[in-house]
Amino acid sequence: MKTILKTMIIAALTASGIAGGAIADGHADKALMAAIKARQSQMQVIAYHTGLLGAVAKGEAEYTSEGATAAAENLAAAAGLHRELLWLEGSVQGTVEGTRATAKIWSDSEGFEKAAMGLEKAAADMITAAGQDQAAVGAAMAGLGGACKTCHEAYRGPKN
Amino acid sequence: MKTILKTMIIAALTASGIAGGAIADGHADKALMAAIKARQSQMQVIAYHTGLLGAVAKGEAEYTSEGATAAAENLAAAAGLHRELLWLEGSVQGTVEGTRATAKIWSDSEGFEKAAMGLEKAAADMITAAGQDQAAVGAAMAGLGGACKTCHEAYRGPKN
Repeated sequence: MKTILKTMIIAALTASGIAGGAIADGHADKALMAAIKARQSQMQVIAYHTGLLGAVAKGEAEYTSEGATAAAENLAAAAGLHRELLWLEGSVQGTVEGTRATAKIWSDSEGFEKAAMGLEKAAADMITAAGQDQAAVGAAMAGLGGACKTCHEAYRGPKN
Repeated sequence: MKTILKTMIIAALTASGIAGGAIADGHADKALMAAIKARQSQMQVIAYHTGLLGAVAKGEAEYTSEGATAAAENLAAAAGLHRELLWLEGSVQGTVEGTRATAKIWSDSEGFEKAAMGLEKAAADMITAAGQDQAAVGAAMAGLGGACKTCHEAYRGPKN
């Protein structure tokens, strides 16, 4: 199943011009780089909304139910993206430029999935908290930060 | 309501270190730049999955219900993000570096909302099509491309 997806993705990226060039041993990594760029964009969306919620949690930004809920829902939407299209096997630190993804993401795919589900759970909890009050956002922030840390410590390599 | 959100965002970004620095006339645009980066990341996620689906539509990549549905669902999730946290007033071409967003986004906010809802509708239609077959994806691609074009023509300025 994963192989079918990867084949589709490499063909699609190459054909659509996102990756460019013909499919060949030397060109497949363009598809990987496009996937890396997409998932780093996903992380950017997550980081932006986490920053908003973090400041609300600290009391450095005004809590409003509307604003906090919107931020939490955006965070959850980004966290919930299907991962198989973004984490292509081979898009790993040391093989492709510009990523800190470790090989363990694929060798320990169950653990990675569990960590990612931890983020989804933390984001869902944040939506609930965001509708309550500033203190609830603060409590949920601990879970959210923990989910980020768990995954980054286990599956992100050192800075280049 | 929009003002409350903007105040929250500027305070949050500044306090959380995403924007950095104290809130002052000269520093508020750091919050705008963070929002611009976040929405450009959103667009990147949309473009990546549109590229996958476009290649399936053209028959250049193999159609699978699973792969096409995952791509369409990711596209819809990105398209459906709450816009008020991303399109901050003032984050406009000519005022802040690195954006092609035109002033019309805010002066014609109803029109912009309508165009954005057009993308959400096209993404929802793509999910339906993705579960059917390659021809359905092709038909839905026309609507998706049209939604992109409508918004870009009306609300995106020239390249710098």
